[in-house]
Amino acid sequence: MSRFWSELVGALTPYTPGEQPLIEQLVKLNTNENPYPPSPAVLDAIRGQTGASLRLYPDPEASSLKAAIATVFGLDAASVFVGNGSDEVLAHTFCALLKHERPILFPDVTYSFYPVYCGLYGVAYRNVPLDETLSINPENYAADNGGIIFPNPNAPTGRLLPLAAVRRILDLNPDSVVVVDEAYIDFGGESAAKLVPDYPNLLVIQTLSKSRSLAGLRVGFALGQPHLIEGLERVKNSFNSYPLGRLAIAGAVAAIEDEAYFERIRRAVIASRELLIAGLASLGFEVLPSAANFVFARHPERRGGELAAALRARRVLVRHFRLPRIEDYLRITVGTDEQCDTLLQALAAILAIPA
Amino acid sequence: MSRFWSELVGALTPYTPGEQPLIEQLVKLNTNENPYPPSPAVLDAIRGQTGASLRLYPDPEASSLKAAIATVFGLDAASVFVGNGSDEVLAHTFCALLKHERPILFPDVTYSFYPVYCGLYGVAYRNVPLDETLSINPENYAADNGGIIFPNPNAPTGRLLPLAAVRRILDLNPDSVVVVDEAYIDFGGESAAKLVPDYPNLLVIQTLSKSRSLAGLRVGFALGQPHLIEGLERVKNSFNSYPLGRLAIAGAVAAIEDEAYFERIRRAVIASRELLIAGLASLGFEVLPSAANFVFARHPERRGGELAAALRARRVLVRHFRLPRIEDYLRITVGTDEQCDTLLQALAAILAIPA
Repeated sequence: MSRFWSELVGALTPYTPGEQPLIEQLVKLNTNENPYPPSPAVLDAIRGQTGASLRLYPDPEASSLKAAIATVFGLDAASVFVGNGSDEVLAHTFCALLKHERPILFPDVTYSFYPVYCGLYGVAYRNVPLDETLSINPENYAADNGGIIFPNPNAPTGRLLPLAAVRRILDLNPDSVVVVDEAYIDFGGESAAKLVPDYPNLLVIQTLSKSRSLAGLRVGFALGQPHLIEGLERVKNSFNSYPLGRLAIAGAVAAIEDEAYFERIRRAVIASRELLIAGLASLGFEVLPSAANFVFARHPERRGGELAAALRARRVLVRHFRLPRIEDYLRITVGTDEQCDTLLQALAAILAIPA
Repeated sequence: MSRFWSELVGALTPYTPGEQPLIEQLVKLNTNENPYPPSPAVLDAIRGQTGASLRLYPDPEASSLKAAIATVFGLDAASVFVGNGSDEVLAHTFCALLKHERPILFPDVTYSFYPVYCGLYGVAYRNVPLDETLSINPENYAADNGGIIFPNPNAPTGRLLPLAAVRRILDLNPDSVVVVDEAYIDFGGESAAKLVPDYPNLLVIQTLSKSRSLAGLRVGFALGQPHLIEGLERVKNSFNSYPLGRLAIAGAVAAIEDEAYFERIRRAVIASRELLIAGLASLGFEVLPSAANFVFARHPERRGGELAAALRARRVLVRHFRLPRIEDYLRITVGTDEQCDTLLQALAAILAIPA
């Protein structure tokens, strides 16, 4: 605490990201990164921009990237907003579209950055409990609110809400912005992007960090009708004119355009996830159905925190949240089949020792 | 305007950056970019990171970059904050350190993003007029305030405040944060960074966009005592855990470490500036003394807006602000000697035509 801080700063509870260990030789299944490298076309595009032109500012509108995204989703560029990772896009969304008099709604078990954004922007919120299966029930969102946000698939559960259920939430809330945070949608869900032309209150947010293997590049985007996108642009242009550098724009365009590579690695991750789920089940874990590149699992006889610590001792990192309802779960990123095998072997060894 | 916007969004007046033309063959002297390419070591470092590791999140603390900056400035890493361009660092500064009950102070003629940040974060401000020579007078900052910010050299005037005058402002305001925005300091000024150990109320902000030729990479930083840096980190970690991607971190470390290259291009720009000032004077321009990589000049017989338009017609871009006190000035970035010659020839041709 410093007497020079604004009143706000002292009251903030910042987000804690998953550990990015600087030591090597770990099996790192804690931050939902893709086990496969980015498309070779992405690396070529970045190399092509690695030269004298870096002395120049990037296009503040990132028009080439908006055009590429618009084409893939069958929208026009005025329906696309881009930012420095989907976390920045989310931040601007809370400021521009979710700050109203009434509290916003989001699940009690969800991305733990949402309440942090609320703290930063002074947004009141109310948690809507997941049902007993840790699923979102659309009918629970038929309540007075200033906006709604949820990940689909939800994090850290991995559970998917079918598009009909997303539509139900939209229909129940014509006067609220409904934000569908689709960081993981490409691993088994159907995007709400196709609903954008029908719903003036829908904003869909995606990232290149997961399904495009570009967590290290920092690019995310939002899709919505132009009046919502304009609200985001106004905040962005009051914060930072140039959120995406030249390398990020070039790499992201190539990633969006290489649909064949995207399909290949997406399918590989989905296949590995099904093997991982089977392997965990055979060790006695209860695993929630997952449409993401991670699984959420608990063992009926072991505490989540103990398992996470024991895995860490064996150089396998997974994510564990000390939070109500989910403290006995592990969130395990889907790695390569080899990495998943290492995890399963480590778990088998841990479980062989009496608790 | 959309009914879904927050109240704030409708009230914002976003910043307008200098034009980034997509057409080629222009002499682009409008956004204060460096005419020289980044250090070859920067390009090598970026190429070294352009691979499979882009699938992984970057270090959220950018520890290697903080360490490199700390070493160059003789500070420790806890005195360094880094962000996605100095505009993002400025934004977090307004939120974390300049939002108090009393209005903050900044010059009437200055970086036009400051009032935009005030709008975004609800910070009250009062403009302190520059004197009749368009200089900052430190004694004018002996007034009740919630914080002070000014660029040094000032933008768009290019005028430098000597370090003794900066110290005077700090001494006059022991209870306020004084932010010295040193985007252009390397082109002729003495950084206030050396005052950091002595002043708990000092924050110095710099960028790699200008003197390190990296406007396209987006990296800026702040220097201050750890209690100020911690305030910035709390806001950053409530906004975006990973503002700098892997390529930005790697390139920025190399840029900071290549001091020999930095010295070379810095001196080249300073030498070109002096030639440009002489050339403009010989055409009858009044040129303010500049310690920046741009000059601020007016012609006693021609309107600034007309000159800027006439230059544009000749494919030379400069920046013109339709603002009180400076509407007849042009802000001209120092290019290579060849680019400066093209500008001077174009101006000579324009002035040869009777107004």
